Formats: sequence, structure tokens, C-alpha cells
Amino acid sequence: MGAPALRIGLLGCGNVGSQVARLLTEHAADLAARSGTGLELVGVAVRDLGRDRPGIDPALLTDDAAGLVDRSDVVVELMGGLEPARTLVLQAIRAGASVVTGNKALLAQHGPELFAAADAAGVDLHFEAAVAGAVPVVRGVRESLAGDRVLRVVGVVNGTTNFVLDRMTTHGVDLAAALAEAQELGYAEADPSSDVDGADAAAKIAILASLAFHTRVSLADVTRDGIREIRPADVAAAREQGHVVKLLAIAERVGDDAVAVRVHPALLPLDHPLAAVHGPFNAVVVEAEAAGRLMFYGAGAGGQQSASAVLGDVVAAARHRVLGGKSPSESAYADLRVAGPEEVRTRYLVRLRVDDRPGVLAQIAAGVAARGVSIETVRQSVGDGGAIALLTVVTHAASEEALAATARDLAELEPVQAVLSVLRVEGT
Amino acid sequence: MGAPALRIGLLGCGNVGSQVARLLTEHAADLAARSGTGLELVGVAVRDLGRDRPGIDPALLTDDAAGLVDRSDVVVELMGGLEPARTLVLQAIRAGASVVTGNKALLAQHGPELFAAADAAGVDLHFEAAVAGAVPVVRGVRESLAGDRVLRVVGVVNGTTNFVLDRMTTHGVDLAAALAEAQELGYAEADPSSDVDGADAAAKIAILASLAFHTRVSLADVTRDGIREIRPADVAAAREQGHVVKLLAIAERVGDDAVAVRVHPALLPLDHPLAAVHGPFNAVVVEAEAAGRLMFYGAGAGGQQSASAVLGDVVAAARHRVLGGKSPSESAYADLRVAGPEEVRTRYLVRLRVDDRPGVLAQIAAGVAARGVSIETVRQSVGDGGAIALLTVVTHAASEEALAATARDLAELEPVQAVLSVLRVEGT
Repeated sequence: MGAPALRIGLLGCGNVGSQVARLLTEHAADLAARSGTGLELVGVAVRDLGRDRPGIDPALLTDDAAGLVDRSDVVVELMGGLEPARTLVLQAIRAGASVVTGNKALLAQHGPELFAAADAAGVDLHFEAAVAGAVPVVRGVRESLAGDRVLRVVGVVNGTTNFVLDRMTTHGVDLAAALAEAQELGYAEADPSSDVDGADAAAKIAILASLAFHTRVSLADVTRDGIREIRPADVAAAREQGHVVKLLAIAERVGDDAVAVRVHPALLPLDHPLAAVHGPFNAVVVEAEAAGRLMFYGAGAGGQQSASAVLGDVVAAARHRVLGGKSPSESAYADLRVAGPEEVRTRYLVRLRVDDRPGVLAQIAAGVAARGVSIETVRQSVGDGGAIALLTVVTHAASEEALAATARDLAELEPVQAVLSVLRVEGT
Repeated sequence: MGAPALRIGLLGCGNVGSQVARLLTEHAADLAARSGTGLELVGVAVRDLGRDRPGIDPALLTDDAAGLVDRSDVVVELMGGLEPARTLVLQAIRAGASVVTGNKALLAQHGPELFAAADAAGVDLHFEAAVAGAVPVVRGVRESLAGDRVLRVVGVVNGTTNFVLDRMTTHGVDLAAALAEAQELGYAEADPSSDVDGADAAAKIAILASLAFHTRVSLADVTRDGIREIRPADVAAAREQGHVVKLLAIAERVGDDAVAVRVHPALLPLDHPLAAVHGPFNAVVVEAEAAGRLMFYGAGAGGQQSASAVLGDVVAAARHRVLGGKSPSESAYADLRVAGPEEVRTRYLVRLRVDDRPGVLAQIAAGVAARGVSIETVRQSVGDGGAIALLTVVTHAASEEALAATARDLAELEPVQAVLSVLRVEGT
């Protein structure tokens, strides 16, 4: 172990950063053995020098992030946000430092620029913690499946919405009540809109799609729909059909030349591996041509859990600096077209309130068939006083366009009082 | 992409090897893009040159494996067995070739020798396909968790026994019937003893334990118990307790200085992630100090699925040859002691047939307590004609020694007619 210790510069000292600092110290001997050299934490850049940071040597703290980058061999960026994170990461790369980041917003927005810079400089850019906390899906897609052809990536990658939908399923409460509970438990932030509206999941699937399909996919390419419209009755209807409602992030090949990337709530059959992912956990199923269906599962967030992923990346970067080599290039050589939502085919579950009289079912069936959509099942339950009925229609796969048109048509049919909800069904 | 194509030599052309050959050809362009250079299959060594091998260019076939090794940059060893595999792999390593192997027997037996040789030569030795088919758990433990401290590895890593236990659970059939069905479906070999007796799972967990704990663990260190003694009544009793029976492969830290490695059937609660692993699928849960519980899931066998893992390794080896670097050294720096079974603490489920009369329960409880073991639950059901009762006792965690002594004691108690079975309980 003759190599001099590598200088680790930590940008940001929040939930994850403080755990990274702690583990670097506590596991110094193990980390050195695995890295082939010592790892020395040379500084921690923070915005507010005045705040007390238990467990961090005050002499390490600095508010000069750029100066810290200049004296680091491996820069660990955990500040979040776009700037100054982008500028500092580019500075590190150009100076020949390796970079480990957990910043999904940065990668979803500026990934191509950062990967190109890392390639040009011949340095590592690792980001396992940016996608699903401790779950090693980035390495799985980037390396384990490097000899295969990925067909589809489907993930439950947002712990907050997963917890909320779980509570709605098991306790029958509405979204607001479940969200309030998530906030009390620390699973949701005071302003949960980035989770609830699917933005967080969209950033993660944009990163995964780029890796899996070797194509530039940015946040703006992701078709997105959050869980605000999900009502307890939707969850109950799903259960009646042997399904659960999950917020899914999906990237898939469409034809030979395109990839479609979307985030939306969907029904999943109970025996699908992702149906058993509960509470704040994350899981990603990757379907590849030869490997079949693989699943990666674990804690999707949490300071300590994400710190484990960060340190795995730090060790990989350190090994490369000691032994030579670098992380795989993220060149977008396949350059698939990003397909619009109109190119995606999916199944729908439509809930309708209708007049309860003979012939209604036939009218509904004809209305659906008129758009070239075929019906898989219809379930009818009688509502208030027998004058109305509730219909649950599940369609076979059809284009989003045909399905949207069908829903519009149904709303216009004379015996239909209301289209209660339209939800996608995945996972067959 | 100026680098000359790498010469790939394939040793063995069975189920996995033929798929590797096919994918190397079909995905040549993608593989070249990811590897940074072309991958050229220069030969396929087989024992029987006369056999027809559809899809393989006959000009590539050779029975001179040593000669093929001499003209290969990356040797893919899929012949299985100890010799000549060991000699050929060592020859390749010493000649500076990278090696990818799917040979679990070879690694479980001669891993330390091969890793030391690869380290000395500075070449890659990859073996993802040797542990759980397509499931990327080797890379997960070797790289993703390199910055963490693994506490426990628990896997369902033998598809044959998993299928058999599944059938026993869902169809109530006995072992022989379930095994016959597995053979019909091609999930079990004509001689299934290596699966049924736990030898296959033991080889896999020996490899995983070596990686996870940076310690030399060989096949002989694994305490092993197969599923031959499992009867439908055991499976039914497990279900009554909300559990399923799985053949588990477990490696765990014992105290600060030791690791215990074992394979045995055990009861798992239905909500444990491994309980939902069905049929021929494999899954491994890795519990690490910071990351918490991670799970890796996928196809545990199958030519095409394992070929995906092999090709991921080939790409990694190719990248290292083009860009520099090598796979992590498997030095056994931690060098933990391998603990004997007497050091493991576990919970037991004991099924007893007893006389159905007052005071029996108290006698049993006293018998268990006398060995310092405490009881978690007792369930009683009345058997034939009311003269006998069936007791199901679940203990709290205790040493194997105390539990074995308890089982002996119970058998001697006057009202105990028979100890029907003694099974471990895991997963709390």
C-alpha cells in the first residue's frame, strides 16, 4: 500500500454528507484495504460555517468550495441543486479529479454535458446515490447488463408516494391524510409537490433511461403524471381486481428506434415483484433480452443508506486512480429517438357511474369497440338505491390516443352519468 | 475505437456457452461500443468435435483447449468441473489473459489460488454467472457495497429446491412427486442430489461469503443440510404459522472476528422479501451496516440468462484491457475465523406428538426451559381420536447446541410420543 492517500473533498454536509464523513473516519482501515490506498477527508464545504456539526472536525469545514475542489483527488458532491453544483463538478473534472455525486436534478438536467466532460478528461463520474438511494441499480444497468440488450426499466423510485399509496391501500384513508402521516414520520417534506407530482421520479428515470438505452434522455423528455388524482375509491377498485396502485417510472423501447419514458400511477397485479415493495423502499425491475427480469431492491433514501452508495462509488473511483482505468463512458452512441406518449400502448381501467337499466353494458361495449379498443373484463356493482350502477372496465393494450378518445366518447354516452377515473394498468 | 479487436476464447459449448457464442455474434456492434473495441470469438473448445452445434461456425471448433487459451485475450471458461478447468484458467492468467468463469465448483474449491494468481498477474477474474445465474449479486457485493460493512448474506440460490418446495407448498405433494415434476420441466437433473443435498447452494454461498467478508471460505467450511427430510406436514405447519419453507444459504458475522456459513431449510415469514421468490428464480438479500437490506433478484439459471451475466463480465474485462484497470482484488485481508455451527444462534420450530392430557404443556415448557431456551409460541391441535395432540413449539433464538440438547430432552419426556421435526426459523 505504497500509494499516497487520496484527498477526498466533500461538498455539502446535510443528511447524506454528514454520514459520508462519519463512515470515512469509522471505516478508514477497511476502505483503505478495498481502495488500495488511504482515503483522507481533506475538507467539507458548507454554506453556513456557524452551524454546529456534531462529529465533524471543525478544522475541516470551509465555505470556499472552489478552493476545496482544487485540493481534492476525489470530489463528493452532495449539495443538491443545479448551481453552484454544476460549476464545481465541471471544475473538478477539468482539474482531473474523480467525481461522485448524489445529485439527481443536476444529472437529469446537465448529464450529457457532465459525461462528455468526464470522458474528455478521462476521469470517473459516479452517481449511484442519485437514482434510488442504496439500491445498486446504476451499477447493475451500467456494468452487469453491459453485455445484454435492455428492453424495459420499471421502477418504484419515490419512497414518499409509495408510502402514501400504501397507507391509502391498507388504511383506506385519502391522499391528504396519508400525506400528513408521511410528513409526521419524516418520509415527506413540508412541500411534497416534487414527490407527489412525479418530478423526483421523473429525474431518476431520465438518468436510468439514459444509461439503459445509451441515449440522451433529459427531464423534459419524461411524460409525467403524479398521484394527486388518486382517490380511495381507485385504490379499492384496484384491490377488487387483484391489483395495487403504484407510482411507476417506466422507460422502454418502442419499435427499433425509439424509447418512451414516463411516470404515472398505474395498477400492478399483486404477484408482480414490484407490488411487494412497501413504504419508503425502492425497487427497479430491469427486463433485458437475455437476462430476463432482474430486480434491485433496497432503501430508497436515508442519509446512512445513501452514504453507503456514495462510499461504494468513492472506493470504485479510488481503485481506478490507484490501479488505472475509469468508469464506463456514458456516450449516447445508440441515440434512440424519444417517443411521445402517443406512441405508447398500455391497458386502462376505467370506472364509470351509469344508469342501471338493460342494454347499458352493450352500449358501453359498442362505445369502446368503436375506437378499436377491446375489452378484457367488465365488472358491475349496483350503487345507491338500485338506480345507478358502477362499472369497472379493463381494456386490452391500446394506444394512449385511442384510450383518451374512448374515455371522451364514453362520457358523452346517454346512460353514462360520470367517468369516475381512468387509470393505466401495467405489469403483465 | 482504434484498439485492435480482443480475441475471445470460449472453453465449453453447453447450455450457457452456446448462448454466449450466439450473443457475441448477434450483438457485436453494441458490445464493441460498450467495450471500446471489437470482440472477436476466435475459438470454441469442445470435448467432442463430432457433435453438431447449430449456430456455431464449425471452423471455430477445436479440441485443443490449451492451444485456444494461448491465442486468447479473454478466456471464457464454461466447461464446469475442477479439471482441466483449473489448469486452463491458471494457464490463461499466467499468460496475461483475462478470465471470465461461470464455474462455481472451481471457485468454491480453488478460489484463493485463482484469485492470488490473478492478482499476481494483474489480470481480471470475473465470475458473476457462477453464483446466481443472471442475478448481479457478485458485482453488488464486490463493488456497490465496497464502502460498507456487510453483516449478513441470505440467499435462495438453488432454483431446483426452490421449485420443489414451492410445489410442496402450493400442491401439498411430497418431495418425490415435486422432484419428478421438476425433472419433467427440466428444472432438475436426472441425479438431483447436488441440489437436494445443498451442495450447489453451499458452493455459491462459499463464494459469496469470501467476497462479502474478505475472508477465505471454502466449500468445506459450509455447514450443510439439504431438503430430503422435509415432509408435506412440515410445509403445512409452516403455513399455519404464516411462514414458508425455503432452502437458505446464509453467511453472517459472528461476534467481531468470525463468520458462519451454512445451508439448510428454514421457515421464513411470508412478508420477508425472500418468501416471494418462486420457482426457478434466485434472490440474495445482503444486509449491510449503512445500506440496510438490499435484495438482488432474477433468473438463477438458464443458458441465455447466465450468458447475459457472462457477457457483462466480458465487457468489463474488455474495458479494463482497453482503458486500463482491473477488477477488485479478492485479497482475504479481513481473514475472519470461520465459526462452527455451535456458535450460531437461531430460532427453532419443533413439532411434537404428545399424549393429550392435562399438564403436558407444562412438562414440555419445563423441558425447554431447563436448557435455557425460551419459548416464543406453542400451538396445539388435537389429533386422532383425541388421545394424542400435536404441538408446534417455536423458540426464541438460542445456540444450536442448546436446541439440539432440548430436542433430545423432549424426546425422552414421558408424554412425548415422537419429535416429528425440528426446523430452523429465520428472517426476523
